[in-house]
Amino acid sequence: MINRLCVIGVGLIGGSIARAARDRGVCREIIAVDQDNENLQDALRMGVIDDHSDDVCEATKNADIIVIATPVGAIEAIFTALRPNWSAHSVYTDVGSTKANIIQAAINVFGEIPSNFVPAHPIAGAEKSGVEASSPSLFDGKRIIITPVKNSDVGALKRVSDFWQALGCDVSLMDASRHDAVLAATSHLPHVIAYALVDLIGRKDEKDEIFRYAAGGFKDFTRIASSDPSMWLDICLGNRVEIIKLIEQFSGELDGLVKMLRDEASAELLATFENAGTARARFLQQEPRPPMIGNSREQFD
Amino acid sequence: MINRLCVIGVGLIGGSIARAARDRGVCREIIAVDQDNENLQDALRMGVIDDHSDDVCEATKNADIIVIATPVGAIEAIFTALRPNWSAHSVYTDVGSTKANIIQAAINVFGEIPSNFVPAHPIAGAEKSGVEASSPSLFDGKRIIITPVKNSDVGALKRVSDFWQALGCDVSLMDASRHDAVLAATSHLPHVIAYALVDLIGRKDEKDEIFRYAAGGFKDFTRIASSDPSMWLDICLGNRVEIIKLIEQFSGELDGLVKMLRDEASAELLATFENAGTARARFLQQEPRPPMIGNSREQFD
Repeated sequence: MINRLCVIGVGLIGGSIARAARDRGVCREIIAVDQDNENLQDALRMGVIDDHSDDVCEATKNADIIVIATPVGAIEAIFTALRPNWSAHSVYTDVGSTKANIIQAAINVFGEIPSNFVPAHPIAGAEKSGVEASSPSLFDGKRIIITPVKNSDVGALKRVSDFWQALGCDVSLMDASRHDAVLAATSHLPHVIAYALVDLIGRKDEKDEIFRYAAGGFKDFTRIASSDPSMWLDICLGNRVEIIKLIEQFSGELDGLVKMLRDEASAELLATFENAGTARARFLQQEPRPPMIGNSREQFD
Repeated sequence: MINRLCVIGVGLIGGSIARAARDRGVCREIIAVDQDNENLQDALRMGVIDDHSDDVCEATKNADIIVIATPVGAIEAIFTALRPNWSAHSVYTDVGSTKANIIQAAINVFGEIPSNFVPAHPIAGAEKSGVEASSPSLFDGKRIIITPVKNSDVGALKRVSDFWQALGCDVSLMDASRHDAVLAATSHLPHVIAYALVDLIGRKDEKDEIFRYAAGGFKDFTRIASSDPSMWLDICLGNRVEIIKLIEQFSGELDGLVKMLRDEASAELLATFENAGTARARFLQQEPRPPMIGNSREQFD
């Protein structure tokens, strides 16, 4: 068990980390920092955290693990605030959905990436935000991708990996650049597409009142597109090179479909639709295994 | 109460019509036609239908209402089979997801649209198919769009409208061309996009095994893209003019997003993402009201 966990940003993810850590007996004490005082008071009232401080240096003092769970766009400022009291005895990690730009932010602030900062990204989330939306089981059986860099300290990496396993996660290690390319495909592109579709159809609805005739699939698009806009702005700007590349590939895919439709190319259209069904079957097989709590704890303790 | 209902095609939709009609006491007897003998036997075993016939003329004899619930691509052949014994005493309707091409199919077969054929489209469905997937509550509180033509008989229109209200639906009347444009936006385009995305990412997965890192939103896309490929082939070919128009508009929307990303145009990106959130709120307000079973029955009886 670790003694003190510090969570910077107790929103959906930070709050869920704190609650999972408490429920699973991973740490003795949880200190939080959050710009949003109302959210902090909610976190205290809900028993998610034990204490908080306005001063990031005070909050991180003597912490064994410090998790930066702020929006991606705020991380460089957090590094700057942490720098004067950066402690060699602590391990620092983050939960950002993009990794190369967070590593760059660390380089900007520290000159090189501190060896005890281990970037990471849990593949878990929800459309809602804030500590009220947090859950102690958000990470059960989910994957966490840890993206160590060349000078990462192996001990620090092990501590971050053990921490996430203790929260119920399946750990994968990956280069930051591969992480950003993979997540652009499996998460960022789908979100951008959902936002684009709902924006387009939303403008038609204003004119023609068509939403009343929408059903099934479209509702899923609107739900995906209701994720926090400012969080997705950060992600899209942070990983824009990969995302642009994929939007362009996707536009090419749509051009292909338009050609098939114009040519009434039944066999090609059917093959495309069937490929998608096959991909779903493969996707469902790839879903993370159910959590193995006992096993994870053993590895942590 | 009507005496005899004939359902041509007892799949998800036809089977659900039969079950809703029986549960709600809408008809005395249900006769089915279906090419798939196994599906027909399931329908009999489940008590969904009372009887069936291989001969479409035999099955429709003395039926008060005949519902064509086959795939859209089969409807012209069904019209041809029905023509020799087309009865002025029956009312004919369909459930196709596209309407202009079904009206055209009727013109191809009959020279003009029979005045007692009233095209319609219930906005209800699921990814699964076959009578096993049918449900007596599939239409509860859902919308049905009826698209009468210039020479439609008012009595026939009234009987089809009453029938669907008795099954729990909210009836809207619309021109076939407007129906096709509206559904292209709210249903066909979202499905095409989901198929295109899952096909694209599926090909990347084969190469790079990326599905294991997918979560949240992407799963919804794969579910949408698991709808029956041959049904969607029919819909896409049947409404291809409207669908092509919308894919091109959507590609324009994506080009706009790429430009915003290249320019790091934060304010514009944020506005686009926020518009989508606003559209969802409006969409949720537009969802059909809960079913009013008693009221619907009164109107029918």
